Amino acid sequence: MPGRAVVLLSGGLDSATTLAVARKEGYECFALSFDYGQRHARELESAQQVAASLGAVTHLTLRLDLRAIGGSALTGDIAVPKGRSHEAIGAGIPVTYVPARNTIFLSHALAWAEVLGAQDIFIGVNVLDASGYPDCRPEFIEAFERLAHLATRAGVEGSSRFRVHTPLITLSKAQIVARAHELGVDLSLTWSCYEPEPDGRACGLCDSCLLRKKGFAEARLADPVPSAH
Amino acid sequence: MPGRAVVLLSGGLDSATTLAVARKEGYECFALSFDYGQRHARELESAQQVAASLGAVTHLTLRLDLRAIGGSALTGDIAVPKGRSHEAIGAGIPVTYVPARNTIFLSHALAWAEVLGAQDIFIGVNVLDASGYPDCRPEFIEAFERLAHLATRAGVEGSSRFRVHTPLITLSKAQIVARAHELGVDLSLTWSCYEPEPDGRACGLCDSCLLRKKGFAEARLADPVPSAH
Repeated sequence: MPGRAVVLLSGGLDSATTLAVARKEGYECFALSFDYGQRHARELESAQQVAASLGAVTHLTLRLDLRAIGGSALTGDIAVPKGRSHEAIGAGIPVTYVPARNTIFLSHALAWAEVLGAQDIFIGVNVLDASGYPDCRPEFIEAFERLAHLATRAGVEGSSRFRVHTPLITLSKAQIVARAHELGVDLSLTWSCYEPEPDGRACGLCDSCLLRKKGFAEARLADPVPSAH
Repeated sequence: MPGRAVVLLSGGLDSATTLAVARKEGYECFALSFDYGQRHARELESAQQVAASLGAVTHLTLRLDLRAIGGSALTGDIAVPKGRSHEAIGAGIPVTYVPARNTIFLSHALAWAEVLGAQDIFIGVNVLDASGYPDCRPEFIEAFERLAHLATRAGVEGSSRFRVHTPLITLSKAQIVARAHELGVDLSLTWSCYEPEPDGRACGLCDSCLLRKKGFAEARLADPVPSAH
């Protein structure tokens, strides 16, 4: 029987859908977000609204100093690429990659899961129509799961067998949009854009906006979030 | 030829000795500490002094919200055990265990190493005369090393093969004290106590103080840090 689960929630399309899947499967969901100095802090408001609308038990936002570490267009002075082709997006690891971000996020999720007595962690990573981030691949997730048992009291004492659930891993962006729609996710609350316009609209040109647009177009649904381009 | 290395530095005996070993081996050392809401924030001053005295290139202290996660005597309302026997200290995982702490610390070290172009990370874990923390064991370190390659751009693109060095892993506390002495570490700058007295002295009764005392006694050296008991 599903019990408690920690769900990583950025406030984007993928993590909102992941939370809806976890709820549908019957988990009591503890949503976890990070204020890590990202340009698109707008997504944190979305995370809060998504957590509430999908019935998370609680929503915790932790602060991290990733800006002090740097090395990414999302936390530093490097420009966010705009208007790239889908081929370019699919080729190689982009400058929006944040060093070790998912390792850091999952480590905190693991800590919280252990304190909550939860053995399930959900993360909305996917590899099709994705940004090519190394820490979104199944082999990374498996290695983290293995680490989780060795890292914790709950793993060592055998009271918990941590599982990292990736319900979207093999879905295209269009399939994610369709799944979200089917599960009744209010997609107007989600936020994907890496660098919003001064007027608050999504830019429509960063990799994340372009992947989102492709997903909605292929799913033949209208995106309720307005975009400048 | 050794290049840059990230060295996790708590300000305690073990991490100070580890930094001295890394310097001795010729690494350019980037020291990393965490202000994670620990009771013994006194150790952060020690970390700064130790980093300077041992010639670290720089010393970065990152803030973490581990108090919001809880689950440990070091970050929450659970009492720190005092006056336990060495048998009791060696048996099982104590309440001072902080869920997933070394996973969180190493994840940040990995992020910083990637940004610095470093492939070496040093951590002062050891298993003899230790507190029984699961995330100090060699199997945990190996699992983290494996994860590091899968998690990062540097690992995937083959530009870096991350190594996690644990120069103290098989040493007793007495051997660590002796090694520190031999390397000229100023042990008066280090701090081990989990819960300092109101007058600023080490308590002398927490597990960390007791292990330190045992180490100095067996190494036949006097501890320059004053202790209340």
